[in-house]
Amino acid sequence: MIRLFIPHDLAAGAELALDPGQSRYLAAVMRQAVGDELLAFNGRDGEWRVRITAVTKRAVAVRAETLARPQAVGPDLDLIVAMVKRGRVETIVEKAAELGARRVRLVTTERTNADRARVDRLTAVAIEAAEQTRRLDVPQVFEPVKLEALIAGWEPTRRLLFCDEAGDAPPILHVLTPDPSPQGGGEPWAILIGPEGGFSPRERQTLRALPYAIPVSLGPRILRADTAAISALALWQAALGDWTPKAAP
Amino acid sequence: MIRLFIPHDLAAGAELALDPGQSRYLAAVMRQAVGDELLAFNGRDGEWRVRITAVTKRAVAVRAETLARPQAVGPDLDLIVAMVKRGRVETIVEKAAELGARRVRLVTTERTNADRARVDRLTAVAIEAAEQTRRLDVPQVFEPVKLEALIAGWEPTRRLLFCDEAGDAPPILHVLTPDPSPQGGGEPWAILIGPEGGFSPRERQTLRALPYAIPVSLGPRILRADTAAISALALWQAALGDWTPKAAP
Repeated sequence: MIRLFIPHDLAAGAELALDPGQSRYLAAVMRQAVGDELLAFNGRDGEWRVRITAVTKRAVAVRAETLARPQAVGPDLDLIVAMVKRGRVETIVEKAAELGARRVRLVTTERTNADRARVDRLTAVAIEAAEQTRRLDVPQVFEPVKLEALIAGWEPTRRLLFCDEAGDAPPILHVLTPDPSPQGGGEPWAILIGPEGGFSPRERQTLRALPYAIPVSLGPRILRADTAAISALALWQAALGDWTPKAAP
Repeated sequence: MIRLFIPHDLAAGAELALDPGQSRYLAAVMRQAVGDELLAFNGRDGEWRVRITAVTKRAVAVRAETLARPQAVGPDLDLIVAMVKRGRVETIVEKAAELGARRVRLVTTERTNADRARVDRLTAVAIEAAEQTRRLDVPQVFEPVKLEALIAGWEPTRRLLFCDEAGDAPPILHVLTPDPSPQGGGEPWAILIGPEGGFSPRERQTLRALPYAIPVSLGPRILRADTAAISALALWQAALGDWTPKAAP
């Protein structure tokens, strides 16, 4: 069934006019008609079954009928990635949405050579991936900031999984030990992936000295930034996140 | 340093004429000159430092000088993926190379709608990724075969990690328990990723009945095929493969 992210409030009986882009998609691309059913979510009110009540080429209206799934929130996980080529940033945002990151933060470092991102475009990628992956929220994508600024504004309770290419960090599964207790995995975390050229020695030293940073190795091969990001997200979800159901409290 | 896969035998003093594609890349794109040093590997003789001895626009010659790393072979891991869109198959091959799969096998299933792959093109993707990731071999990519044919020719000692979307399979890290013993991870394995539409109920039943198959879940969200493949490869390498050094025997 088609699944759409919409900004409107969702409640039983709500009548909603979809925006021109979604209307065109439903009417022209997916050939939907009055009476057809879809799913809608807005990140706040859960997932709703909605029914199409009017269709023109440019305007589709729907009515919210019943709640399909109540709103739920995934683990509090940030993905922080150094700026890489645009196509790879889009891949990373798509995969962060599929793998349940709550926020994507872009950083510039000594060895990044881009400092601008089309956050509107990346948000569209995040929305489309969230629609496909059936999550109930959309990860928030932030404007790039300098690594120093990110560190300066750090919440000290958030742990930082620092994917360190330099080789002497412990294997990631030595650090991410599954905790099946009901409380396990409830803490806020962030995953940090460096630029294609790696962090500078000075940046590495700063990162490794942070009291909340935990350096880990992602194996003996050189990974591209997107591969490293996807691998670390999957390992975190499998060990501490929602890939492993918690024991009943 | 530039790193090239070449088909020639590598040994101290060997004089090698590179093919036109690599010659053009070195001379025109990378502006290499006589006396410059690079790394070369062929999947058999280890990684060698080689020095450029002649450069024209279309022909570069090198001489192998010293062995940089002896030949080593990674874990015996196959990635089996149902055919998806061409771009995503290329991504999957690139990531399989970075994540240390030894072979990539493409399969057609009831719900795949492509049965041809450009294996020459995919092999070029595998070579380029192997050059970048610094592995000493190139994963072999095979022509697509039917899922039934793959099962019919199965070596019974190879375990099959069946990434099963249907929801009742155990979490992947319940199955892939790290084994730090010197023998741990030495067994042959394969990872199986289904098509975008999933396996049919009949296919799932067949797969789950195979004595060597171990169904696992990759969490509560729907993953695209490339995301599922990368996630499963990373988890396997971290738990059983070469991301976790073995204890001394």
